[in-house]
Amino acid sequence: MRGTVLYGPRDIRFEDRPEPKIIEPTDAVIRIAATCVCGSDLWPYRGIRSYDQPTPMGHEYCGIVEEVGSAVTSIKPGQFVIGSFFASDNTCPNCQFGYPSSCLHREFVGGAQAPVLRVPLADGTLVAMPGVPSEDLIPSLLTTSDVLGTGWFAAAAANVKPGGTVVVVGDGAVGLLGVLSAKQMGARRIIAISRHEARQKLAREFGATDIVAERGDEGVARVKELTDGIGADSVLECVGTQEAMKQAIRSTRKGGYVGYVGVPHGVELNGEELFYTHVHLHGGPAPVRRFLPELIDLVWNGKITPGKVFDLTLPLDQVAEGYRAMDERRAIKTLLLP
Amino acid sequence: MRGTVLYGPRDIRFEDRPEPKIIEPTDAVIRIAATCVCGSDLWPYRGIRSYDQPTPMGHEYCGIVEEVGSAVTSIKPGQFVIGSFFASDNTCPNCQFGYPSSCLHREFVGGAQAPVLRVPLADGTLVAMPGVPSEDLIPSLLTTSDVLGTGWFAAAAANVKPGGTVVVVGDGAVGLLGVLSAKQMGARRIIAISRHEARQKLAREFGATDIVAERGDEGVARVKELTDGIGADSVLECVGTQEAMKQAIRSTRKGGYVGYVGVPHGVELNGEELFYTHVHLHGGPAPVRRFLPELIDLVWNGKITPGKVFDLTLPLDQVAEGYRAMDERRAIKTLLLP
Repeated sequence: MRGTVLYGPRDIRFEDRPEPKIIEPTDAVIRIAATCVCGSDLWPYRGIRSYDQPTPMGHEYCGIVEEVGSAVTSIKPGQFVIGSFFASDNTCPNCQFGYPSSCLHREFVGGAQAPVLRVPLADGTLVAMPGVPSEDLIPSLLTTSDVLGTGWFAAAAANVKPGGTVVVVGDGAVGLLGVLSAKQMGARRIIAISRHEARQKLAREFGATDIVAERGDEGVARVKELTDGIGADSVLECVGTQEAMKQAIRSTRKGGYVGYVGVPHGVELNGEELFYTHVHLHGGPAPVRRFLPELIDLVWNGKITPGKVFDLTLPLDQVAEGYRAMDERRAIKTLLLP
Repeated sequence: MRGTVLYGPRDIRFEDRPEPKIIEPTDAVIRIAATCVCGSDLWPYRGIRSYDQPTPMGHEYCGIVEEVGSAVTSIKPGQFVIGSFFASDNTCPNCQFGYPSSCLHREFVGGAQAPVLRVPLADGTLVAMPGVPSEDLIPSLLTTSDVLGTGWFAAAAANVKPGGTVVVVGDGAVGLLGVLSAKQMGARRIIAISRHEARQKLAREFGATDIVAERGDEGVARVKELTDGIGADSVLECVGTQEAMKQAIRSTRKGGYVGYVGVPHGVELNGEELFYTHVHLHGGPAPVRRFLPELIDLVWNGKITPGKVFDLTLPLDQVAEGYRAMDERRAIKTLLLP
């Protein structure tokens, strides 16, 4: 088969690769129905995160099980399944505590931008649908695999409650789905930080009540104006830069909550400043597996349409253009169809 | 009157000072029944925190109201009262949200190592006892003013729950009362980090089930051994140094909670490391006023005896020796009687 491999900064190739097979008895092999490019794929694509060798790319996936290993008991060939970017056994103490993305046996699922994918720990990782979904549901279902699960975790980590005031820093797909998540959790007021018209529009569609275009200290000042000088109850940090993290913490009310899911790049927090903000800080790689059943249910029953974040759909063999469009911010998120 | 003033590193003087008077109509003036030296007083005493001019010291107090300003309605002369080191109005949005130590009108209460003290925002700040306490209750009542309230906040911020596993980093008075707080909140296992015999003994008396003498990475390894390799549900950071904060974060299980109350000195947190620990981080200047009614009740009814942290009692005019004894770790905490 052909799959997606990153060779160096902005050098994405779609090339011949060995077809994935069952290696461990706990594996499954699935045929991909749809995959996509993640904001976090752009870090290595831009050369900001280093890599030693050509790297198979892609970690968001859904599709039909082709084969399972001999130790797999709950997942069956023919099922339409979704899993997280971290395979997890769903039984270890960290999984039981709600953090499958810190599973003691976790494995990163790489190489999903391809027609076929090997998924380790299939019983713990994969969730099977009630049936094979109609084609129009697939983009929204695919988002539960990472981008929606991550936005949802940001909102949960930021303790979004019915009636609360929320700020979302970051207007990428994760931030936009953070807006959707906050709305779904009952937030009364959702302030999206965005300076891009198309993203502002989608943020409003997902439930944003206010848009703030300013960043940094000006953005903080604007949020304070909108919240009687107090700051927001809950702030979602969906970028991962020092500026975004600072803006998030300073936009939060004393004793409020910051949920951060942007993979930190060069972020340093000053202990003394953090101390006097009184914020609660929680984040990390989203424990997507914890949320999958609930999120799949919301999508399956038409309660939410997170698939709207895909504003570019390409055949899988044009994956390089999918990266370029996101890198140049021409696309929010690229859907890839094998 | 004579009061305590810090002139420079290790230069504490007990000298003539103007007698505090009502300045604002919301003030009260109280006659101190007992006061004490705080671990945080040692930062400026050691010259680690700078000051421009001679500074009146002391912020832990209880005593009898002598006079109130014209706008004070609930606090009356003759009442025995306790307040926090931050005066707060108890009505602003930050107070209502549970963070009186971030009150929009907060004022630091300084100069309590003296026979008489002015307390701003008396109605919001002070809590009156049901009567005048017997002398043996006074040390324990005094602790609610800061050191117990701070240890209690560390445990609350670290989400200590019945049946949970807790680590306390720091064997000063705050850490020791963090142990007491965790016990009171129902923790099943409490691991105190301490290498001092007298403090280990008191930690056990307050409810510690295990003592770990190792610090840094060795301390972390020891905690992991005691917790099946997983780490603790809740970790209280009661020191404020980089080493202590690191040890606290690394001793916590994935998705666990760190409550930090040691005033950070030179603490920097790496965003990426924090991200992958999955910890919840919360702390700051303890919102003592929130806890005062509950803590006073526990002491008043003999449920807890936090006053045991005072292992040195001196007349107020020997305050300089009180600082010296704590600085040299000859005393855990010095009680001062006017």
